[in-house]
Amino acid sequence: MAAEGATDVVALARALIRCRSVTPADDGALEVCAAALASAGFKIERPVFSEPGYPDIPNLYARLGTAGPCLVFAGHTDVVPPGDEAAWRHDPFGAVIDEGWLYGRGAVDMKGGVAAALAASLAFVAERGAGFGGSIAFLLTGDEEGPAVNGTVKLLDWAASRGERFDACVLGEPTNPAVLGEMAKIGRRGSLTGRITVRGRQGHVAYPHLAANPIPILARIIEALSDTPLDEGTAHFDRSNLEWTTVDTGNGATNVVPGEVRAVFNIRFNDLWTPDSLAAAIRSRVATAAGRAEVDLRFDPTNSVAFLTEPSPFVELVAEAVEEVCGQRPALSTTGGTSDARFIKNHCPVVEFGLVGQTMHAVDERVSLDDLTTLAAVYRAILGRMFPPR
Amino acid sequence: MAAEGATDVVALARALIRCRSVTPADDGALEVCAAALASAGFKIERPVFSEPGYPDIPNLYARLGTAGPCLVFAGHTDVVPPGDEAAWRHDPFGAVIDEGWLYGRGAVDMKGGVAAALAASLAFVAERGAGFGGSIAFLLTGDEEGPAVNGTVKLLDWAASRGERFDACVLGEPTNPAVLGEMAKIGRRGSLTGRITVRGRQGHVAYPHLAANPIPILARIIEALSDTPLDEGTAHFDRSNLEWTTVDTGNGATNVVPGEVRAVFNIRFNDLWTPDSLAAAIRSRVATAAGRAEVDLRFDPTNSVAFLTEPSPFVELVAEAVEEVCGQRPALSTTGGTSDARFIKNHCPVVEFGLVGQTMHAVDERVSLDDLTTLAAVYRAILGRMFPPR
Ligand SMILES: [Zn+2]
Ligand SMILES: [Zn+2]
Repeated sequence: MAAEGATDVVALARALIRCRSVTPADDGALEVCAAALASAGFKIERPVFSEPGYPDIPNLYARLGTAGPCLVFAGHTDVVPPGDEAAWRHDPFGAVIDEGWLYGRGAVDMKGGVAAALAASLAFVAERGAGFGGSIAFLLTGDEEGPAVNGTVKLLDWAASRGERFDACVLGEPTNPAVLGEMAKIGRRGSLTGRITVRGRQGHVAYPHLAANPIPILARIIEALSDTPLDEGTAHFDRSNLEWTTVDTGNGATNVVPGEVRAVFNIRFNDLWTPDSLAAAIRSRVATAAGRAEVDLRFDPTNSVAFLTEPSPFVELVAEAVEEVCGQRPALSTTGGTSDARFIKNHCPVVEFGLVGQTMHAVDERVSLDDLTTLAAVYRAILGRMFPPR
Repeated sequence: MAAEGATDVVALARALIRCRSVTPADDGALEVCAAALASAGFKIERPVFSEPGYPDIPNLYARLGTAGPCLVFAGHTDVVPPGDEAAWRHDPFGAVIDEGWLYGRGAVDMKGGVAAALAASLAFVAERGAGFGGSIAFLLTGDEEGPAVNGTVKLLDWAASRGERFDACVLGEPTNPAVLGEMAKIGRRGSLTGRITVRGRQGHVAYPHLAANPIPILARIIEALSDTPLDEGTAHFDRSNLEWTTVDTGNGATNVVPGEVRAVFNIRFNDLWTPDSLAAAIRSRVATAAGRAEVDLRFDPTNSVAFLTEPSPFVELVAEAVEEVCGQRPALSTTGGTSDARFIKNHCPVVEFGLVGQTMHAVDERVSLDDLTTLAAVYRAILGRMFPPR
């Protein structure tokens, strides 16, 4: 359900939260954005992308102006499921305001961020008119929390194939751990998932010489991958980190030595590695630990490379805008999970700055109204510095 | 279905195999035994034992004579399921004879052994009459392959409570690895099952400082229990041996650090240990490996202690009877899985000697007709040495 005519950040955020846009549903969320942008003169396009085996996903591309430079705001209007709705203080799609907080799924991740970008752009255009000496664009998708195959990655290619060029991007994902203004993100670690099967020989526990237990071999492999750090980190990145996510055998018989055991791990890696170089290093450690045991190691296909937006005038511009509005210079971090920035960085420099992420994906996700208006002011300041009055 | 009047070992074995006595079913198997024993003048009793939560199980106690010494043959008539019957060369309950082999579930474990004890006793009584200077008894159960709560353990208590006393027992489980005569068993290792849960803190793989992964801790525990032997073995026993039977997490999300992981191990231990002393040693190793991590370790209740029938005139008598009939002195071993001997040893000395176990519990379980008649001759020789003509 779309609200008509909302232009201030709180009204826009509430209108977006009221849409039950759990991936792949849209429920009018992109129409809220389209209506707001159209009212300011943006040209709107609404491509729907498809892929066999995945649901069709609506996307939105909007642009005001044809001149360069072009600043693009990127974001997503889909949200993760609310979980147990009864556990919420307020309806997760009710957009209830309670003691200065706006409650709802997506309040911080990232309908609040999208609302702030919309409100800032509308205010900027209302003040400066269309002749501000550049262009503003929006790349909004409904497929970030899901498989992310019919979202930003295709929207970027679609825009590029039509000759659209971007000079800088602000992605409004929640980046602040506790206080608005303390952290922007200028890169993200890559992600690599590996799956190991260790095969032994099934048998009876009373006749161990006729069996070969794969579990102690897997234990050695776990230690080989976990006990020695993969690296020591880099100038802008933490150490790469490996976590075992599951180990499974599924043998209910306490008198049977299992024939195989399976395990999965995920690595968040820094800019010392490519997925290929990291996979090769892991293979080497596994081979040493496995000895002559039969071990199958496969890596999931990934497009999650580590990337860094090197310090540059644009990064500095964002940092200064944050400091101007929030009163502190943000740390320029590369921590946390992946985001669509990994796709955007192939097209233009991208900096992520958004709300405080504490309640994202959790019950009672909420944003303070103060933070909402402050974030809109930050984006407004970025626009002002990107397009200074001539 | 019971065969009438079978008295030779092959006919008895075939009659038993034709009963589909997969635990807890009997299907006439004990009646085959009862009919044979009654024909030789044995007094038969057929107690049925019950336990809440378990099926009722028929048992058989038979005795010929009241004088001592009393030699008892123990055994079971239940069998494990046949598995995929279509994979068998012959109907697993058809008792088909093919090129000198008798096929069927239980052929070696242990309907063949029961048939040999019956045939030997019948032949002995036919030759010597009832005044052979002692007693012969049979303890037969239908609950050895199942939970074993309504079988031999209760049958022994039932007999003891009625004043029955036994001087020596032959248990006819399959004991020979490849050739009849090479191995008798004079003890068995104990069995202890432990269950470990390692608890960490669930979280997102991208924020490892907010999570605590239990899997590397379990890996250390696995190594602590597996890499250093529990002991070096004893005069009559191999080293105690620990096998991990399963490790499970059940986490399908590759971006989630699991909150806990569970593992199960089973130890087959020698006479250096009691279940309690072994559990204490394991607890100590686990505590050292776990450090400050939260680890829950529980042991399944067990009555599987390690035991040894010390070399004695009875053990020597059995070994000499085997050597006389088979042409080789049997090794006196304590290897392999548990058996009802762990209950019998509390009542009288017990030696296990039976068929070749290679096909037990497998598809195409079978016994050679030669082995059947030879085993009956061994039991006949044991009776002859136990009750020498005066
Ligand atoms: Zn998000
Ligand atoms: Zn058996």
